[in-house]
Amino acid sequence: MKEMEMQSEDDEVDVNILLFTDFETLDVFGPVEVLGHWKDYQLRYISATGGLIKSRQGTEIQTMPAKEADYSGILLIPGGQGTRLLVNNPEFIELLNQMALKAEYCLCVCTGSALLAKTGLLDGHRATSNKRAFDWVKSVNTKVDWITKARWVVDGKFYTSSGVSAGIDMSLGFISDRFGEAAAAKIADAIEYIWNSDKENDIFAQE
Amino acid sequence: MKEMEMQSEDDEVDVNILLFTDFETLDVFGPVEVLGHWKDYQLRYISATGGLIKSRQGTEIQTMPAKEADYSGILLIPGGQGTRLLVNNPEFIELLNQMALKAEYCLCVCTGSALLAKTGLLDGHRATSNKRAFDWVKSVNTKVDWITKARWVVDGKFYTSSGVSAGIDMSLGFISDRFGEAAAAKIADAIEYIWNSDKENDIFAQE
Repeated sequence: MKEMEMQSEDDEVDVNILLFTDFETLDVFGPVEVLGHWKDYQLRYISATGGLIKSRQGTEIQTMPAKEADYSGILLIPGGQGTRLLVNNPEFIELLNQMALKAEYCLCVCTGSALLAKTGLLDGHRATSNKRAFDWVKSVNTKVDWITKARWVVDGKFYTSSGVSAGIDMSLGFISDRFGEAAAAKIADAIEYIWNSDKENDIFAQE
Repeated sequence: MKEMEMQSEDDEVDVNILLFTDFETLDVFGPVEVLGHWKDYQLRYISATGGLIKSRQGTEIQTMPAKEADYSGILLIPGGQGTRLLVNNPEFIELLNQMALKAEYCLCVCTGSALLAKTGLLDGHRATSNKRAFDWVKSVNTKVDWITKARWVVDGKFYTSSGVSAGIDMSLGFISDRFGEAAAAKIADAIEYIWNSDKENDIFAQE
């Protein structure tokens, strides 16, 4: 398997977390809590400009400028109110495009998938998003095969989740896909999280 | 009810989030995501010194110095590896004591309850904590009525939860207690979170 070749137990892998103004707080910190438990993953907070970036909930996070980052490894893209402006920001979308092209895996939470869709990299791929913002997300790029009922979707290197908390389930699913279900269950147990491990089970989708 | 008198729909209430080095990331940002959805709650990140505070997972958060904060409102105390040092830091415990005395409500996540227990304010009160660190937490103060099986515990103004993710359930429980179950369910739905709403149901407790 490609993953097994890429990630031996000894390798360190960067998890590049791309922040922007008005990102949704838990979109980031659910996955951070899960991925941060994997000893070989190095979490890095990145933004277009570097410096402090404020979430929708007013949390200010220190970031490094994207130009100083190594884009290989895993890319995490949160959603949130800020995505509504950013889909119309060509410089940001081109930065995301460059980062996503070079990343081994891209994990999008919530409306983060709208940003990735705007790059064109999801064209022809299966993906999902927040169910409350689904019509808007679909309108961003109709060439994506948007899945209306899924806790999260995997298509090649692209992982996309439903809203906010679904990012925790997806991150555990990502760990499970890479390192086995027991590894994911161990992290869920450590953070006393009741893992919704079935990615098809989406109680928030409207049939 | 006292709560109803204190918080009319028009009042703004500070949520004071007390950060320290090596706090557990999701202990903070689970509750932040929930409480941040309540329009009258103003989230404020506070630390003993102010400035950037780094979580166990390497996230650097901007904080204001405690001396500049108004301690009324709601106090949120995360847990994490940093608590092991802080229980032996009299200055920090006295700061926490002052903040908790003045707070209308204290919400502790995970081993945050060990810090609050150290102040003595939990003596004779029911409380819980992370089930993996429970023996250590109990050893910090044996005058607390530690509950070994509970997703979260409410005793007067003190809310204490089990490990990490249980803080999300407790925060929704807190909203439910203040503003009704429908209000909590609405937030859970907005963040697509499958709320474990029974505080007695603790699958992580060892019988």
